Amino acid sequence: MAHAVKARQDGATDSLPAPHSPLTNFERHSMTALPPDPLASGIAAYGRDLRAGKTTAEAATRAYLDRIKALDPKLGAFQLVMVKQALTAAKAIDRLLAAGTDLGPLMGVPVAVKDLFAIEGTKAFAGTKLDVADLIGGEGSFVRMLRRAGCVILGKTKTVEFALGATGISKPRGTPWNPWDAKVARLPGGSSSGSAVATAAGLCGFAIGSDTGGSVRIPAALCGLFGLKTTVGLWATDGVFPLSPTFDTIGPLTKSAADAAQVFAGLTGRPVVQAAPLDGLRLGRPVGYFFDNLEKPVAQATKKALEKLAKAGASIVDIEVPEAAERAKIFPVVLPVELVAALGRKRFKAGRRKMDPVVGSRAESGLTVGAPEYLHAIWRTRDLEKIAEQRMAGLDGWITPTSPILPAPVADLEDPEVGGKYARLVTQNTQPGNLFRQSGTSTPIQHLGDGDLPIGLQLLCPGFAEERALSIALAMEELFGTPPAPNLKGFV
Amino acid sequence: MAHAVKARQDGATDSLPAPHSPLTNFERHSMTALPPDPLASGIAAYGRDLRAGKTTAEAATRAYLDRIKALDPKLGAFQLVMVKQALTAAKAIDRLLAAGTDLGPLMGVPVAVKDLFAIEGTKAFAGTKLDVADLIGGEGSFVRMLRRAGCVILGKTKTVEFALGATGISKPRGTPWNPWDAKVARLPGGSSSGSAVATAAGLCGFAIGSDTGGSVRIPAALCGLFGLKTTVGLWATDGVFPLSPTFDTIGPLTKSAADAAQVFAGLTGRPVVQAAPLDGLRLGRPVGYFFDNLEKPVAQATKKALEKLAKAGASIVDIEVPEAAERAKIFPVVLPVELVAALGRKRFKAGRRKMDPVVGSRAESGLTVGAPEYLHAIWRTRDLEKIAEQRMAGLDGWITPTSPILPAPVADLEDPEVGGKYARLVTQNTQPGNLFRQSGTSTPIQHLGDGDLPIGLQLLCPGFAEERALSIALAMEELFGTPPAPNLKGFV
Repeated sequence: MAHAVKARQDGATDSLPAPHSPLTNFERHSMTALPPDPLASGIAAYGRDLRAGKTTAEAATRAYLDRIKALDPKLGAFQLVMVKQALTAAKAIDRLLAAGTDLGPLMGVPVAVKDLFAIEGTKAFAGTKLDVADLIGGEGSFVRMLRRAGCVILGKTKTVEFALGATGISKPRGTPWNPWDAKVARLPGGSSSGSAVATAAGLCGFAIGSDTGGSVRIPAALCGLFGLKTTVGLWATDGVFPLSPTFDTIGPLTKSAADAAQVFAGLTGRPVVQAAPLDGLRLGRPVGYFFDNLEKPVAQATKKALEKLAKAGASIVDIEVPEAAERAKIFPVVLPVELVAALGRKRFKAGRRKMDPVVGSRAESGLTVGAPEYLHAIWRTRDLEKIAEQRMAGLDGWITPTSPILPAPVADLEDPEVGGKYARLVTQNTQPGNLFRQSGTSTPIQHLGDGDLPIGLQLLCPGFAEERALSIALAMEELFGTPPAPNLKGFV
Repeated sequence: MAHAVKARQDGATDSLPAPHSPLTNFERHSMTALPPDPLASGIAAYGRDLRAGKTTAEAATRAYLDRIKALDPKLGAFQLVMVKQALTAAKAIDRLLAAGTDLGPLMGVPVAVKDLFAIEGTKAFAGTKLDVADLIGGEGSFVRMLRRAGCVILGKTKTVEFALGATGISKPRGTPWNPWDAKVARLPGGSSSGSAVATAAGLCGFAIGSDTGGSVRIPAALCGLFGLKTTVGLWATDGVFPLSPTFDTIGPLTKSAADAAQVFAGLTGRPVVQAAPLDGLRLGRPVGYFFDNLEKPVAQATKKALEKLAKAGASIVDIEVPEAAERAKIFPVVLPVELVAALGRKRFKAGRRKMDPVVGSRAESGLTVGAPEYLHAIWRTRDLEKIAEQRMAGLDGWITPTSPILPAPVADLEDPEVGGKYARLVTQNTQPGNLFRQSGTSTPIQHLGDGDLPIGLQLLCPGFAEERALSIALAMEELFGTPPAPNLKGFV
């Protein structure tokens, strides 16, 4: 069967059937034998089994390829699947481990990578129909880091065009289906939409995304995952499509904080972060901006989470961060300008009609911004970084809802006005973290309320405090318990 | 007499008579007793005398104040003189040394500071009639560093308006007179024009300038001084008018490389740099761009200097740096944009008619540059920095003329076309060093030829290689010998 899969999915172009394409009888049949997610119990448990000889990287890879084949036609998470390369790499990893070489926590872990990254032997689309290969270049240091850590790259996941958009909707190469509702296509969140859907549906051990204004945290929140937003500069973005060099960051989407701790340790070579003691933590609750526009289930689950944290001994301190509102002025200047500068006016104008209409109209404003106004925005972010540092002083982090809204039906956003409103709301609480050059996480908390759609709790920490953020997130995960996984029956 | 001087020169506004104002009988009389430059033999010799009790900081300060009074009415180097503060500081420094506290090589050295820097108790004009105090702020870390090193601040020297201009001509607050020609007012070079004239005329031990496109090296070359261009980021520019945060650097103008080595050691707390052995040095001679448009005396003196270096055992290697030409595209984008952004469109437009006409028309283009084009220029400088590093590989530095042209009569530049041509030529060889984020020096070499106007030899080294540049410059100074000082008879 691997061979059959290969024939259809391999190669350097889109190779999976388009989402919602009718399944063949063969495919229907294979679904009945859908293998379980080989990393359902987490990266650490998988690693133990791997080293104990109870499983192999090849077996895990085959299981994911089968699950992708079965589930992805409807989910539409993958832009392309690298069947042959993944199996070849997995077998080599198994041999390397057998030979006594241990590459650490991520050895043999199948990973999916956002289609914003160059991967040797595949084409990078960056979610667009325009040719932007020149802007991405060859495989960069982050993907090489994944390889050195022993990851098996399964394929590339769909992204909003140019990574510019947080709802997850993107016309040129399709919008993945949020796995939490098989009946109604709901927003997966973006721009790392495919990475979130693939991870939530158990189509990979974890996935790589990028976060410029919330593009890791928002899809994590909307798909019930854990997301880590790193600090600009922690991981170099060579070999990644440049949306905004000022704000672009790379981060993993994982099934749990525990998995993210493994990923971080695996990539950095540092020890695995342990949970922080909650007793004595001082967490800021930035009232005002971050708690505006909350849908009721979000407000309820957040309240519960804060109560649990307080009960566990954390001090929840109300603080004011009025500067968060400036994200609404600065992002519409910096992102379009930097995107238009990367594409060049000529390519942008020539390709405008091929673009997603929302992406195109957002980016278009970059054509007319004056250089002094752009500089004012950039200079202001430097001030804001310092102001945010002061507001963080004496605190271990800030706690906010990740998205004030639940994953809405995709169809609701066909009205451009509704679409615009959702785009503004969904980034309300994440863009400030980019603006302030912070690190952060999103932790699923829907099971603390009574809703059945995912909800994320955001933790923001100072820049380069990823390990602190992870240690607090690990403690929260222990306190809140792991949320249930989505029911995938409707997708097979 | 100090009291009489004080009454006329102290305070926080322009206090010296305008250049070329008629001298009173009293002033004519004082000139006959013009004291010699107390640091004519260099900072190290002065330091030895000071510590041996042969002189005092107060005596040196009084001598400079007397020389300023006598010579500056015609030279017009100073924007304001801080008589009272300088004498008070000098006396305190003398007491501190007597008490056994040695602040290092710059203790008791009277210094003049470009009027781009905030100095407590004085007003900073930045060469303009516009109010820009808000952009300069309070006394910054560099001036505090001068104070901690034990310098006595004599006053503030004239600068081209906003430091935007390399000929030294600036209408709003006047163009200093190049001390090498008392009959014809010649270009002092800019924008650190007053710092160069004050140092060349022996009105201070050394002076502080800033170099964004050559503003330390050019006036050093045109006034027969040594100039050190530091790397962006070596010294913070808080408390300094921001012309271009991308390129702004602070650097000293000194009578010799030996003095610059003392200044660098005094400010950084590191040991005084020693001359490098010339035998075995590999110096690049970037043929093409840097050797275009040379006036005959410049070409001759440069040729002599290179011959002497080769004879002393240095390898002179012809190299190509065609990217130098890009300075002509990048500077007219980056500087105007960053200046307009700093001033703000409103203040710029409102103050436009008060500006120097050349400065105003250069800066004006910043109003219309698009943000993507500005970003392209910035991104290109990052590429160029790397390309220049590669072209520097295996070399200790590059040797070029500092300015391809001699200091022309100021009157010649009244024709805007001639003025524009000179402005482009005089920065031809210095702007590439800023573009490439290098460190560098300018060494006077007119005595190697047969001309009687100053000529500078530029050395460019990698970024943050200031000590390497100084060690090579020290060796060149030993090899070339010290050039004569200007004859000041025509100025009293």
